[in-house]
Amino acid sequence: MQMIRAQITNRSLTPGAKLPSIRSVAANMQVSKSTVVEAYDRLAAEGVIRSRPGSGFYSAAPLAPLSLAELAPRLDRAIDPFWVSRQSLEAGQGMLKPGCGWLPSDWMPEEDIRRALRNLARTTEHPKLTDYGPPLGLAPLRQFLSRRMAEQGFHVGPDQVLLTESGTQAIDLVCRLLLQPGDAVLVDDPCYFNFLALLRAHQAKIVGIPYTLEGPDIERFEQALTEHRPRLYITNSGLHNPTGASLKATTAHKILKLVEAHGVIVVEDDIFADFEIEPAPRLAALDGLEHVVRIGSFSKTLSASFRCGYIAARPDWIDKLTDLRIATGFASSPLSQDLVVNVLGSSTYRKYLETLRVRLAKARADTIRRLRALGIEPWLEPNAGMFVWCRLPARLDAADVARGALNEGVVLAPGNVFSPSQTATDSMRFNVAQCTNERVFTVLERAMANVA
Amino acid sequence: MQMIRAQITNRSLTPGAKLPSIRSVAANMQVSKSTVVEAYDRLAAEGVIRSRPGSGFYSAAPLAPLSLAELAPRLDRAIDPFWVSRQSLEAGQGMLKPGCGWLPSDWMPEEDIRRALRNLARTTEHPKLTDYGPPLGLAPLRQFLSRRMAEQGFHVGPDQVLLTESGTQAIDLVCRLLLQPGDAVLVDDPCYFNFLALLRAHQAKIVGIPYTLEGPDIERFEQALTEHRPRLYITNSGLHNPTGASLKATTAHKILKLVEAHGVIVVEDDIFADFEIEPAPRLAALDGLEHVVRIGSFSKTLSASFRCGYIAARPDWIDKLTDLRIATGFASSPLSQDLVVNVLGSSTYRKYLETLRVRLAKARADTIRRLRALGIEPWLEPNAGMFVWCRLPARLDAADVARGALNEGVVLAPGNVFSPSQTATDSMRFNVAQCTNERVFTVLERAMANVA
Repeated sequence: MQMIRAQITNRSLTPGAKLPSIRSVAANMQVSKSTVVEAYDRLAAEGVIRSRPGSGFYSAAPLAPLSLAELAPRLDRAIDPFWVSRQSLEAGQGMLKPGCGWLPSDWMPEEDIRRALRNLARTTEHPKLTDYGPPLGLAPLRQFLSRRMAEQGFHVGPDQVLLTESGTQAIDLVCRLLLQPGDAVLVDDPCYFNFLALLRAHQAKIVGIPYTLEGPDIERFEQALTEHRPRLYITNSGLHNPTGASLKATTAHKILKLVEAHGVIVVEDDIFADFEIEPAPRLAALDGLEHVVRIGSFSKTLSASFRCGYIAARPDWIDKLTDLRIATGFASSPLSQDLVVNVLGSSTYRKYLETLRVRLAKARADTIRRLRALGIEPWLEPNAGMFVWCRLPARLDAADVARGALNEGVVLAPGNVFSPSQTATDSMRFNVAQCTNERVFTVLERAMANVA
Repeated sequence: MQMIRAQITNRSLTPGAKLPSIRSVAANMQVSKSTVVEAYDRLAAEGVIRSRPGSGFYSAAPLAPLSLAELAPRLDRAIDPFWVSRQSLEAGQGMLKPGCGWLPSDWMPEEDIRRALRNLARTTEHPKLTDYGPPLGLAPLRQFLSRRMAEQGFHVGPDQVLLTESGTQAIDLVCRLLLQPGDAVLVDDPCYFNFLALLRAHQAKIVGIPYTLEGPDIERFEQALTEHRPRLYITNSGLHNPTGASLKATTAHKILKLVEAHGVIVVEDDIFADFEIEPAPRLAALDGLEHVVRIGSFSKTLSASFRCGYIAARPDWIDKLTDLRIATGFASSPLSQDLVVNVLGSSTYRKYLETLRVRLAKARADTIRRLRALGIEPWLEPNAGMFVWCRLPARLDAADVARGALNEGVVLAPGNVFSPSQTATDSMRFNVAQCTNERVFTVLERAMANVA
């Protein structure tokens, strides 16, 4: 193996060149043929060489290098709804990401996942390892979700639950079913930036409703219904992203009366449910899925590395969504769904969530204290979750601050990426779980000073 | 645990009822509190009971039953491009699926996958278990694909490869980028039925080109270019689905000259590459990704249970496709991508492919012999792959035969689900790997007799 590697490195074996025959190598090196076969097989497994059946072994094409663009953050990218996603997902190991929307990996239930992987490696249900799953997704996970929703107060059969590859894909499928280009869609202002990216991909007309401490501003909501005749309203009821606020019961009731009267469908994204200590009222629970589509995923508290989300909706829509999902993605991943239900059902996961909520409470308090020391004031001190929505001092432009911080390897989340009306220029979202490193605050302070 | 289970079964503990306190149970049963805690924890892990922190344990809502619709095949469904997908994916364990598009699970590289799962359970790269991956997908798999394409004769950097959740999702993203509703798209007639379902979801105008033993009928192809001014042509070059034919070099060259002249983009689906013994010419290799987008996946020979596909295209398109993919699905699955590259790189997988090709050759010969015995004639005896495209005797309607066979638990693939022009009424696709059970042929014979 060393000899072949050396010949490839010093180019005495050029890419695609035929390797000496097993017999000749065995003779020259005075080893058994089987030794040479074993060495060639290992090199082939590593991709250093390739076998062509009946023809012998050849040196492989060299490993293509990654381009610089992939190895460094792009500083020139416009600050749009993709900015935080791209910067956070592309950020190298060394970078800090107080702007990103997920927990640090060492906060996640890693041991539960390792156990689930070991269980799956031992499974006697062979198809689970290799086959497509049923159109709706694995039954045990759909039954688990059906039971959880029953505990939230509404009854949804497992055959009214469609498993998807992510919460985002769930909303995308709903939009594909219910939206035509040009349709108006209501969102909260501010809202999760990827709702805006998704709705642009659907050529929808985005209408922002100012978000208050009780939920969306109900008068503006009613005005928008008559003025824009929207098809959908997309929101998070429990732990709104980015503000960390929660929908109040009276607002929830008013929203439902209005959407019923105007024939609007609510897409309720329940992705942050497992962070909640006191669950907020749910539109899906009050309405029972007549005018509400419930979507959710497990990427925030379980894992984002295997993709799984769900849609709970009226049976006739589930049937149409299932065809749409076959047409556009064929099947979902039984392997991911098995890992998810395996972890969700474990008592250690339940204990992890309790510990996580306590850990986040401490991180929220610490982060808010440190932000205030820099003159950065939270809009609300949330009672759960990882996000704090803040205002920078002296009307500083958060986009300029974010660009400056990115130069020092810190990814921030400037307010306007969340704001359809672009009225959050001096606001910023902080992920408290990603703010435990002192450097976040020193870089932030310097970046603010440079734009002041 | 037995006591609580019994009380739930005999309804002395109704759903949602509070369980007796740990102290009281310990006292009544004269066991230690820790024993009761352990029992309650296990029941909670099973989902039989739920804990409400600070409040105690409650019996959980009952496990929701699956509806009958999920447990039996639907016989009333119209025979459209979804028919084979839905019937095959919904088919219970007992059913036979000579119409489906995948190998039996016991033909798949199960041990390689178990090993990859065990390796992943031991990984020291913690983020791989819990974090989102980079926007393009894991670098090692993109580098592997880049090297494989170099060996097919065209050079594509790893940063020109976008990993997706499936080959279908790959085509869907390309259609979302390049198609507007009403655009014309050329497909082969017959072609993979899900191309038709996907293009309908995009409201494209589908134009079928008769498929010949050399590839698409080149005169009809040229006519269609001038008549319909299509935006895309979607095809399989190696082992065409459903016919098992392969594109000939002269046809490939003519197609490229025509699409260059008319500004059409070819989407080349390479999903069956690993079945090939003598690789067919590739449009992507001849063109070098100027007018061709290469897509592919690993679901046919590696696993369909963890989803992974790819797009190789011009850098400017890859950047747009990456944003589109974030907007509509956020991130891909590093866990799936790690499992795929782990298996692809192993020497045992290479050996498995060699064995599989031999096994398929035998299955093709056996199946063709048995079909001929029933008067069913192959359009072509393919030299690789799992599909044989056949004509039924006496102009029998394959849809009627398929409905009859479904009544006896056998899923067939009637010709017109593959045919945009609906001119394959008496044709049928057989998957030779799913035809090893004698019952396939007895049911087929009876179904044909009943409609004759």
